[in-house]
Amino acid sequence: MRTFILFACKARTDGDFSLEDLPGAGRIDLVARCISSALFISHDIRKDTRLFVVLNGPPSPPVILVFDGAIVKKISPDERSIAIWIQKVLVQLGSSQRTVLSNGIVAERKSFQELIKELKDFPIYVLHEKGKPITDVGIKQNPVWIIGDYLGLPGKDEKFALRYGKRVSLGDVSYLASACISVVHWLCDAQGI
Amino acid sequence: MRTFILFACKARTDGDFSLEDLPGAGRIDLVARCISSALFISHDIRKDTRLFVVLNGPPSPPVILVFDGAIVKKISPDERSIAIWIQKVLVQLGSSQRTVLSNGIVAERKSFQELIKELKDFPIYVLHEKGKPITDVGIKQNPVWIIGDYLGLPGKDEKFALRYGKRVSLGDVSYLASACISVVHWLCDAQGI
Repeated sequence: MRTFILFACKARTDGDFSLEDLPGAGRIDLVARCISSALFISHDIRKDTRLFVVLNGPPSPPVILVFDGAIVKKISPDERSIAIWIQKVLVQLGSSQRTVLSNGIVAERKSFQELIKELKDFPIYVLHEKGKPITDVGIKQNPVWIIGDYLGLPGKDEKFALRYGKRVSLGDVSYLASACISVVHWLCDAQGI
Repeated sequence: MRTFILFACKARTDGDFSLEDLPGAGRIDLVARCISSALFISHDIRKDTRLFVVLNGPPSPPVILVFDGAIVKKISPDERSIAIWIQKVLVQLGSSQRTVLSNGIVAERKSFQELIKELKDFPIYVLHEKGKPITDVGIKQNPVWIIGDYLGLPGKDEKFALRYGKRVSLGDVSYLASACISVVHWLCDAQGI
């Protein structure tokens, strides 16, 4: 099982955004690309992978979306299709605490730190340019990978995650979050993790 | 300089497609994701990278799009924005042989095999699951990476490319084309290529 957590600092927490302007919705385009990178290989879904997206934008953060490759159905890898599902689950969430779409996507009102506490028994890796080189880290089974968006992780949340995990680096280049996910998957595939 | 060539078997060769259905345009969504993966890092464009996209779908294939990171301007990493540029350059191409948009994107009527002939003096690597493991290949400077879309390279075109290049593999998994590009970039970055 591989787990990714994407921290989306400004991503909207209701469905009130335009599919014609996903960047303007707090970078829902970036969120959608990460979901695509995490869940899809060619012609198939990775059933061993789940992705939590922490939406931390207006109007009522935080909301966490859960895409579990073993459960979700009927999704396609393109940004617009994924954004339509995000919009649906946020509309269905409304002011409630938790909701599940018919295709398995979950939205719940929970914070990043609460999520980390739930996952603290897994090996946790926080991706950061200044971390230990990933090729020097013995990646353990069932890893949890924490990834910031274009703004990075908020300091207090990164500090909290580092109580349980360690900083790991893909190098000096600041990659797109979706590219980080693709590289991590490839390294885990190559190492049978 | 890094060069990628994406072979898009069914991608439309005119601008007559809906931005609301990029998958239905012969997988222009996939093309857009590859452009994003090839050209963007966080907050910047890779000026050392160019991407050729061979559009081989209806109504009048082939058309090659050129995105040169040293030249193109005003593009964003989201699929819809990129698709709008693709549509613009194809409309501007019309029935002519070659056109250049004001932001540097080029469209020209040229085949994959003509392009390979032009690039034959660079080291050419054809990505394929059954190739030599990429970690066993000494990647040379100024590599050209050839990547198929969800349908793969047509047999005759792959055979032609292999006159000049070699098959290289990222492993047994069939990755999304955009993920292949991200991994190749990461390997080249790590090796200073």
